[in-house]
Amino acid sequence: MSLELHRVQDVVNELSRRITIRKYYEAVHIIDAVGKIALEDIIAVNDLPPTDKSVLDGFAVRSIDVLNASVDNPAILELCHRACDAIRHKLAIPVSTGDPLPLGADAVVPIEYAEVKNSKLYVYKPINPGYGVAKRGEDIKKGDLIVKKGTILRPWHIAALASQGINKVKVLGNINVAIFSTGDELVEPGSELAKGKVYNSTKYIVASSLKELNFRIIDLGIVPDDEIAIKRKFIEALNIADIVISTGGTSLGKRDLTVKTMSTLNNLEYFVHGVNIIPGKPCAFGVINGKVIACLSGYPVAALIELEFILLPSVFRSLGLANISRYIHVRARAKRRIASRLGMMNIIRGRIYNVGNELEFEPLKLTGSGVLSTLLKSNALLIIDETCMGIEKGDLLDLILISDPIKI
Amino acid sequence: MSLELHRVQDVVNELSRRITIRKYYEAVHIIDAVGKIALEDIIAVNDLPPTDKSVLDGFAVRSIDVLNASVDNPAILELCHRACDAIRHKLAIPVSTGDPLPLGADAVVPIEYAEVKNSKLYVYKPINPGYGVAKRGEDIKKGDLIVKKGTILRPWHIAALASQGINKVKVLGNINVAIFSTGDELVEPGSELAKGKVYNSTKYIVASSLKELNFRIIDLGIVPDDEIAIKRKFIEALNIADIVISTGGTSLGKRDLTVKTMSTLNNLEYFVHGVNIIPGKPCAFGVINGKVIACLSGYPVAALIELEFILLPSVFRSLGLANISRYIHVRARAKRRIASRLGMMNIIRGRIYNVGNELEFEPLKLTGSGVLSTLLKSNALLIIDETCMGIEKGDLLDLILISDPIKI
Repeated sequence: MSLELHRVQDVVNELSRRITIRKYYEAVHIIDAVGKIALEDIIAVNDLPPTDKSVLDGFAVRSIDVLNASVDNPAILELCHRACDAIRHKLAIPVSTGDPLPLGADAVVPIEYAEVKNSKLYVYKPINPGYGVAKRGEDIKKGDLIVKKGTILRPWHIAALASQGINKVKVLGNINVAIFSTGDELVEPGSELAKGKVYNSTKYIVASSLKELNFRIIDLGIVPDDEIAIKRKFIEALNIADIVISTGGTSLGKRDLTVKTMSTLNNLEYFVHGVNIIPGKPCAFGVINGKVIACLSGYPVAALIELEFILLPSVFRSLGLANISRYIHVRARAKRRIASRLGMMNIIRGRIYNVGNELEFEPLKLTGSGVLSTLLKSNALLIIDETCMGIEKGDLLDLILISDPIKI
Repeated sequence: MSLELHRVQDVVNELSRRITIRKYYEAVHIIDAVGKIALEDIIAVNDLPPTDKSVLDGFAVRSIDVLNASVDNPAILELCHRACDAIRHKLAIPVSTGDPLPLGADAVVPIEYAEVKNSKLYVYKPINPGYGVAKRGEDIKKGDLIVKKGTILRPWHIAALASQGINKVKVLGNINVAIFSTGDELVEPGSELAKGKVYNSTKYIVASSLKELNFRIIDLGIVPDDEIAIKRKFIEALNIADIVISTGGTSLGKRDLTVKTMSTLNNLEYFVHGVNIIPGKPCAFGVINGKVIACLSGYPVAALIELEFILLPSVFRSLGLANISRYIHVRARAKRRIASRLGMMNIIRGRIYNVGNELEFEPLKLTGSGVLSTLLKSNALLIIDETCMGIEKGDLLDLILISDPIKI
C-alpha cells in the first residue's frame, strides 16, 4: 500500500467518465420539486401573460379618445354595458384586474380618473397608450429559458413552471447511496458511550449532505476493523446501491484496512489512493461496473471536503450536470497572508466579514481535519488552487459562502 | 369594504400574539433533519474529543524524555509491547491515530521521527509537549451551544449532534397548511389552457415556499368567484389545517370576493385588510380559534412578499422562533437612486454585483407585482423601511441575497 497524490481534476475526470448511474431521476409534482435539482432545461411554451391584459380595475379605451381629457374638459365615451369584445371609436368597456384587453383597446383608464354619469363615461385625465396594460409575453416570452438544467429549484422556479402549465418535473432522485463506517472505536449516536469510544459523526456529515441533495441514503452501520467484515460490507453495499461510501481507515496505519480491502474487490476497473487535496488527502476511489466506491476519511471535515470536491462533482458530471452548488459564491479580499502548499488544492475554512460594502476573508487559526467545530465557526471556504504559492494580504479571492457574512 | 394601511409590524405583532398552533414539531432522525428548522437550543453534553488523543500514528511519550533527541544523539526509550495504560519515565507506547493518549504521556512521536531497534525506540528529533495530541474538549466543550433554536440544520450541525450522541432532534413539522386559489380565469398546470384563461402560478410559489420549510401542504384547488363557494372552502380548510391561505380576490374590484367572504366567517377574532407593504398592499389576515387565515394576493410576487414578510414571521414568532431565514444577508452600496414611498415598507427586487471585493445593488426596472420573471432576474431583495424617504446613490443597504452575486 502506498499513497500517491493524484490530482483532484484527474480523479474527477476519470470517475465521471466511468460512473454509469442508470436510474437517477424522479418525476415529481412541482410543489415537491422545491429544493431539488432540475434535470432538464425548461423552455417557456406560452407567452405570459398569454394576451394583453388589464392590470387595473377600470375601463378599456383607445388612448387617442382620451388624449385631451381634463377635469374642465372631460372626454365623454359610450359605455358598453353588455359583453363587448371589441373597442370602436369613443367606446369604453369596463374591465377588472387580470381581464384580457378587448380588441382595439390600447390602455385602461383607472376608476379614479373617471366617473359614470347618465350611462356615459366621463374621463378627467389623459392616459398614454399602454397605461394599465400588461403586454402579451412581457413577463415570460415563448422560447425563454425559465429553468436551466442543474438548477436547484426555488419557489420562483416552481411558479414559472406552473405559469407554463407544467405540473411535473424531472429532478435528481432515486439514487441509492450505501454508507458505512469502519472503526472499532466508533459508537452510533443514540447508544451509550463506553470508555475509550467516540461517537460516529463523519458518517452523518456525509449522509446528511447527500440527503440535502435528494440522494437516498442506506445506512449500513459500523463495521469492525476486520478485513473480512469490511469486504463483506462492500459487497453488500455494491448489491444495493449505485454509490458506495465508507468512512475511516483510509490512511497507512496498521488499523487502516478500508482502502486495503477495497483494493482487493473483484472487477475493480479503476483505483486511486491519495488525492492532492488538504484536508482530505488520504482517501480512495474505485469503480466496479459503473458503480463508484468512495473510501472517505474518518475525519468529518476531510470527509465533507472529499465528498464536495471529488465525489459529488464526479457523480454530477457523469450525469451531464455541471457546477451544481448549494452555496453562494462571492469574491472577497484576503485579510492576511495565507500559506498554501504548492501542488495541493488547499481548502481553507474561515470567516467573511462584510465591512461597509466590502467583503474580507480571514482564515481560522485551528485547522485540524478532525475539528468539526471549525465548520460551525466558519461562514466561508476558500479554494486555493494547486498552482498557487499562497495568498498575500489584499489578494482577491473566490469564496464559497456557507452562511451570513459577519457585519462590522 | 375598505382597504386601510395597517403597519407590517403591527399586523405581525397582533397575529403572533393570537396564533396558537398546538402541534408543530416532529422528532426525526438526524439524517432526515437536514434542511429543517431546529426547535431547541442544543448544548454539548460531552467533551469532543472525550479524552486527550493521538492525531498521528506513532509513539506516546513524555516529551521531556525526548527533549534533546537528535540524529547524532537519539533518545532511547523502552517500548511497551503488551497493552500498557500508563507512561512512566523513558517508556514509549505505540499509538494509532485516534487512540486515547496513555496516562502520563503528553506528546506523540510520529513514526517518521523514530526507529525500533532491538526492542527499543530510537527517537531522532525532539518534540514539544502537546505535539501530535488533540486535547480533550479542544473541538467541542461540554456546555457549548452547538445548535441554536431556529437554525436551519446543515450537514455540520447534523455531525455536531451525532458527535454528542444525539440521533433524534425536534424540528418544525406536521403543520397543516390548506391553500386554495380564487379566480374564474385560473386553470391548474397540467390541464389544457382555454382561451382567456391563465395558469395558476401564485398558489405554487406560496405552497413551494412553505414546503421548503417543511410545512405540510394541503392543496384545495381553485374556487370560482362565488361567495358561497369561497365560504364553504374557508370552512373546509379551517377544519383540516392550522394555517389557511387563499390567493387572489384581495383588492376592491367587483370580482374581489375573497376578503369580503373571509370577513363574514364566524368567530373571527381579528381582521385586517390592507398592509403598508409594496408590493403586497391588498392582502388580509384573520384569526379564528388560534388559526390564521391569510388572504394573499393573486399576483405571485406580491403573494410571496406577503408570505415572507407578514405570515411566516407571525407564525414563527408565535412558536417562539425569531429571525428564521433561508437566505444570506449582506450589505451593499446603492448603484443609483431608488425612489420609495414614505410610510410604506418597500420591497425592491434587484441585482447585486460583486465588483472586486465590493457589493453593489441595482434595482430592476420592471417592477409589477404580477411580473414573475422579476424574481428569476433578481438575485437580491432590498427592504426599504416605512420611515425612509428613499435611497441615494452610494447609500449602504442591508439586503437579502437569493442567489449568487454577479461578478464583474
